[in-house]
Amino acid sequence: MANSVDVLNHLLGHPPTGPHPIAYNFLIPNLKGLQNFLAARGESSQPTEDSAPITSTEDPNEMPTPPPTPKRDGDDEPAPITSTYDPNEMPSTSTTIHDPVQPPKSSSSANTMEISLFTAATEAFSKANTNCSITESLSNCKAIVSLAKSNDIRVRGYVSVALGCPYEGPDVAPAKVAEITASLLEMGVDEVSVADTTGMGTAPKTRELLKTLLAAGISAKDLALHFHDTFGQALVNAVVGLEHGVRTFDSSVGGLGGCPFSKGATGNVATEDLVHCLHSLGVRTGVDVERMAEIGGWISGELGRANDSRAGKAILARLADR
Amino acid sequence: MANSVDVLNHLLGHPPTGPHPIAYNFLIPNLKGLQNFLAARGESSQPTEDSAPITSTEDPNEMPTPPPTPKRDGDDEPAPITSTYDPNEMPSTSTTIHDPVQPPKSSSSANTMEISLFTAATEAFSKANTNCSITESLSNCKAIVSLAKSNDIRVRGYVSVALGCPYEGPDVAPAKVAEITASLLEMGVDEVSVADTTGMGTAPKTRELLKTLLAAGISAKDLALHFHDTFGQALVNAVVGLEHGVRTFDSSVGGLGGCPFSKGATGNVATEDLVHCLHSLGVRTGVDVERMAEIGGWISGELGRANDSRAGKAILARLADR
Repeated sequence: MANSVDVLNHLLGHPPTGPHPIAYNFLIPNLKGLQNFLAARGESSQPTEDSAPITSTEDPNEMPTPPPTPKRDGDDEPAPITSTYDPNEMPSTSTTIHDPVQPPKSSSSANTMEISLFTAATEAFSKANTNCSITESLSNCKAIVSLAKSNDIRVRGYVSVALGCPYEGPDVAPAKVAEITASLLEMGVDEVSVADTTGMGTAPKTRELLKTLLAAGISAKDLALHFHDTFGQALVNAVVGLEHGVRTFDSSVGGLGGCPFSKGATGNVATEDLVHCLHSLGVRTGVDVERMAEIGGWISGELGRANDSRAGKAILARLADR
Repeated sequence: MANSVDVLNHLLGHPPTGPHPIAYNFLIPNLKGLQNFLAARGESSQPTEDSAPITSTEDPNEMPTPPPTPKRDGDDEPAPITSTYDPNEMPSTSTTIHDPVQPPKSSSSANTMEISLFTAATEAFSKANTNCSITESLSNCKAIVSLAKSNDIRVRGYVSVALGCPYEGPDVAPAKVAEITASLLEMGVDEVSVADTTGMGTAPKTRELLKTLLAAGISAKDLALHFHDTFGQALVNAVVGLEHGVRTFDSSVGGLGGCPFSKGATGNVATEDLVHCLHSLGVRTGVDVERMAEIGGWISGELGRANDSRAGKAILARLADR
């Protein structure tokens, strides 16, 4: 798999086009990683002619989600269809729910880039995933965030294993998650994705965690939820998130992904399943779920793996029947 | 596949043993089918020495769910692990949630038998699935219920396509489902399983349907919910069912099943996923979810199909890691 810099260079050289702008997300493991990113991007605050301009995305409505149309016959370079590059967890996208009376803006055709920083809610997972303690990880993040913000780059933080850890078990202290989340936001991170890396999350645990986060003064609009559907509970938990005001959810088309540090872990909840659920609840996402199902079928085929989206497969069966 | 009478004869001749009694469920397509069932069972109200006694199961706590332990090496006749024989939808089991202060009774070692009658919420599906109109179907059911009750046989009714029909579309009238459900209960059916055969059900539609059923004077304790996880919404919908007082849910181990009249339909929601979800909510089911996951892995292997339970696969991965 290409590394972040290769992906970045490809995107700068061959900016994909689509009906909506795309937010590309790069995992930055350390300060050196960000320096490499900035170098690859060219003059950090002065984008070159042929590169996509980097903008800060303060307005969540400007954080677009629909992937470009997958290219078909005769195309030698399929466009990337997900916006996150993350060597540990595979690509995922975020679905930000739009205000129903405020349709998603599509005026800007500029794609954006953001960086992602990983922390974890348990010491054992922090060691395994990022090779440092939680305190070291936060200290590391602080330097990266500082450099990123001085270059007007949007930063996304992740708190892994927030609802269960493969090493420390299912009971992760919600107060610890809140403390790490608040630390990330205080240092200038734009959004924190609280991640159920193991899929051990349940509705009551999700509720307790969100109550703790909100009670700690964290705004739901600064949060995203990141569920893995390993135990099939992702949508139940997402509904709990909705009930607590969260409007941004991570997912991956076709349920792609997994985690090398979490035995038996599957990918993020499938985008098609999540979007189908959100639409059923009357939520507007701006995502065409039928096109998304086609993309899920296509990428699953390209990767030679089973399509792990139930809604995706059902929609494809329905489309095939037309 | 063996037909109902073959299965019945096998069960009478080789009653499976297990720590809990098992309720075997036979689909009865018409009056002739019940007559054959009664003939095969021998003197209907006087069970023979070597047959399991037939009892009416009025107490939902006596309707047991855990399947017997699957036999392993050296066994030539694996015990059946599901309790429903249904040529259209494949086997499923029902999980009845026990009163938390009233643990499930396991005093009786006697297995029970019940029969199932299928109706449908739309004319088109009724024609396709049972080859008659809804009115004809109910009239047919009435005669069967009468004979069954005079033989002290518990009867379960199903209303198929209650949340979406492959022929008539996603909008099925809740009032029609309520009317059919009430008709079945009035003629003496013990329990009606309201079935989302196509998986088109969503949380709002499930809520509307349950509100309509309850407003029609139907008691939640006379209802079961039967979700197919075709679009991945089964657990979300099950939680809505719980919120409306329903305590019996159909499921199939490993997500086995499908429906020949519903394109792309997958099986019932996997028992492992449902039980994991219920347990996470603090609900007592009496089911050992780890043993259930093992059964799901075993039967999927026997049938040469993918294990379609997310929780099942995750639990098996965790068990393999011990």
